[in-house]
Amino acid sequence: MFITANDPNRTSWLEVENSSDFPIQNIPFGVFITKDDVITIGTRIGNFAIDLSALQMLGYFKDIELTDDVFLQDSLNDFIAAGKKTWRAVRNRVAEIFDTKNDTLKNNQKHRDVIIFDIKDIEMQLPVLIGDYTDFYSSREHATNVGKMFRDPNNALLPNWLHIPVGYHGRSSTVVPSGVNIKRPMGQTLPKGESLPVFGPSKRVDFELETGFITTDGNLMGENIPVNQAEDYIFGMVLLNDWSARDIQTWEYVPLGPFLAKNFGTSISPWVVTLDALEPFRVASPTQNPAPLPYLQQKGDKAFDINLEVYITPKNAEGKLICQSNFKYLYWTMSQQLAHHTINGCKINSGDLMGSGTISGTEPTSFGSLLELTWGGTKPIEMPDGSTRTFIEDYDTITMKGYCQNNEIRIGFGEVSSMLLPATVTVK
Amino acid sequence: MFITANDPNRTSWLEVENSSDFPIQNIPFGVFITKDDVITIGTRIGNFAIDLSALQMLGYFKDIELTDDVFLQDSLNDFIAAGKKTWRAVRNRVAEIFDTKNDTLKNNQKHRDVIIFDIKDIEMQLPVLIGDYTDFYSSREHATNVGKMFRDPNNALLPNWLHIPVGYHGRSSTVVPSGVNIKRPMGQTLPKGESLPVFGPSKRVDFELETGFITTDGNLMGENIPVNQAEDYIFGMVLLNDWSARDIQTWEYVPLGPFLAKNFGTSISPWVVTLDALEPFRVASPTQNPAPLPYLQQKGDKAFDINLEVYITPKNAEGKLICQSNFKYLYWTMSQQLAHHTINGCKINSGDLMGSGTISGTEPTSFGSLLELTWGGTKPIEMPDGSTRTFIEDYDTITMKGYCQNNEIRIGFGEVSSMLLPATVTVK
Repeated sequence: MFITANDPNRTSWLEVENSSDFPIQNIPFGVFITKDDVITIGTRIGNFAIDLSALQMLGYFKDIELTDDVFLQDSLNDFIAAGKKTWRAVRNRVAEIFDTKNDTLKNNQKHRDVIIFDIKDIEMQLPVLIGDYTDFYSSREHATNVGKMFRDPNNALLPNWLHIPVGYHGRSSTVVPSGVNIKRPMGQTLPKGESLPVFGPSKRVDFELETGFITTDGNLMGENIPVNQAEDYIFGMVLLNDWSARDIQTWEYVPLGPFLAKNFGTSISPWVVTLDALEPFRVASPTQNPAPLPYLQQKGDKAFDINLEVYITPKNAEGKLICQSNFKYLYWTMSQQLAHHTINGCKINSGDLMGSGTISGTEPTSFGSLLELTWGGTKPIEMPDGSTRTFIEDYDTITMKGYCQNNEIRIGFGEVSSMLLPATVTVK
Repeated sequence: MFITANDPNRTSWLEVENSSDFPIQNIPFGVFITKDDVITIGTRIGNFAIDLSALQMLGYFKDIELTDDVFLQDSLNDFIAAGKKTWRAVRNRVAEIFDTKNDTLKNNQKHRDVIIFDIKDIEMQLPVLIGDYTDFYSSREHATNVGKMFRDPNNALLPNWLHIPVGYHGRSSTVVPSGVNIKRPMGQTLPKGESLPVFGPSKRVDFELETGFITTDGNLMGENIPVNQAEDYIFGMVLLNDWSARDIQTWEYVPLGPFLAKNFGTSISPWVVTLDALEPFRVASPTQNPAPLPYLQQKGDKAFDINLEVYITPKNAEGKLICQSNFKYLYWTMSQQLAHHTINGCKINSGDLMGSGTISGTEPTSFGSLLELTWGGTKPIEMPDGSTRTFIEDYDTITMKGYCQNNEIRIGFGEVSSMLLPATVTVK
């Protein structure tokens, strides 16, 4: 199916650099605050933020069925709940409005003044009010690396891993947008060789390179979403940094899974890139052997070719690209994750966030966490300033970027970038 | 500190049976829908539901600082966010309004008609919009029983258990109030002795007898709530049935914890009983040895003497009381759970729900799940109709009750009661 907004030959009357993640073929959705402190839903072309509520009020969406205040919101939840047909209609219309061939808005300076903002003049917010956040564990390479380090090198993958898109529940309250800094967590850890835990700042704070997808209302409680219909309930994707405190994790995670090691912060990129925009980059996911159970058997290509990068940048020093990975490496697809999540009747709501799990490839330079890149801290990374890193130091900024690129267009996510602040204690 | 609503000598001009869970000393909070389809926040005395928004509109709260629509809501979240001083002021005022010595409302039939409803004429809703749901694992007896069955009988407790109030994240979207029936989940399980999983309805659906507490906004992200201030951020308690599919759980839970085995449904009682109402039943929690780390060391009594019961009732047959336990058995208190949850800076919001974990005592009749009561299905329970139970059968109703009782008063929770419906499949 051809989506008109995806036409690779389309150009915009708004200036877009060739290297931009946000050509007119992207049209992602997000929430921002203007200089005048108005919160609104918008999109982005090049370095311009576009206020969709202003576009609607000025009549640019008049033949699309929309509730009056759908864009005058502090989250995308209501817009997402309107369903795929609506997202697609709005995205196609935005492409038409900003097309070089259309000068209606272009020639209306009064309208332009209230619709179009320089990206420097707005502040991005969390795009959705997240009801539930689930994190999966779908990279075979990551699960194998972790298994080698912490369990049995010869039996690294657990018996259930090739049958189940393993996942667990995360904490919604600490999911924050790019730019919100994260504090090093305090917690219990068990020093090597000791039998009693100690309390203090985590010494092994790590990132996990992930993507996340955002859902719409998909089912009633007690019903499931079939694997080959799952994409109808996926609004779009973001980059996701699943901050992790490895020393806290090691001590706490048996038997109920990671808890305080993860819930001190999860960072996401603020622009949600729709599955429609990613359509030209659809590829096959890895062959699955053994074949999964029938409810997880998908037809057609369900992965996307998304290049992923991680940079670590010390305070006032040069940064370094330390990881290059790709979303297509994941063993389990988003469709399989969503089908599995609901097979027991678990209800999915508009605005729910699902993390992919750390995305590692086969090459050591493609490992998606410092735990793997430094092999548990045994292989330090050299930084341009001569310092080394095993885990994240205070005031380091972690930046993740993601983009799709073919001969015709580049569709990107921008970035998720946040600094690690030192621990503080308010214990009384 | 004496809270006037707790005066044991107070009686109400509304009729209250001696055996009622809801004397004028209780005054719980909940959300209900009236016959006229109006949703409102209310309280309960005896078998009467009381509309708090009507009370406010008619001026009965005029010297309490409240926003105009705080009770005209479909959740308690805004009221809870107003803080403990407000909850206490409203509860004390309700006690005065319905006190035998006060005939202002008693003699105003017009007001009574819009404020007071027979409990049969209203429908209880979920009391809060739950942002995040966390489930703890705080019964030493339960953790020991599970450890004996699934791990090492001689080393049943895991090394971290006596140091950490172990907890994990649950799913908010499937927390439902008493009366909403639960469907038997489909899922993957590994048959005994096999190496490949099979797909089908869970054969080992269980309940877990728990309580839950509901929080108010307690901290900013990056800050913690000290253990001895934690009770200021606990609004009240409910009964909680953590429905569990044991066979799905066994196959999926290593290494990231239970997921589909739990997130098909969690049932809670609809009336939130405040900590203030439970004050007369405050008792010491079990002695902790080894002493926990300083951030978990609490001063004073932090447990409550709450009798708990579980009944199993087949369709059209006599039910049976199968478990008698008590909240005071829990090794870790709510204050310790909340202090631990936030020690890494995890943000707590108004309306968050925290489950206690299964509450088992030392006696086999006090075990809080069928897994323990039937010892993994090896000791079936005989029912009055001659049938037996190892796990829950289709159309069985599980009912949990909870109450505090001393020589003067009884403060109860009512019940959480739901039926297990047969599995259905919509896999395509």
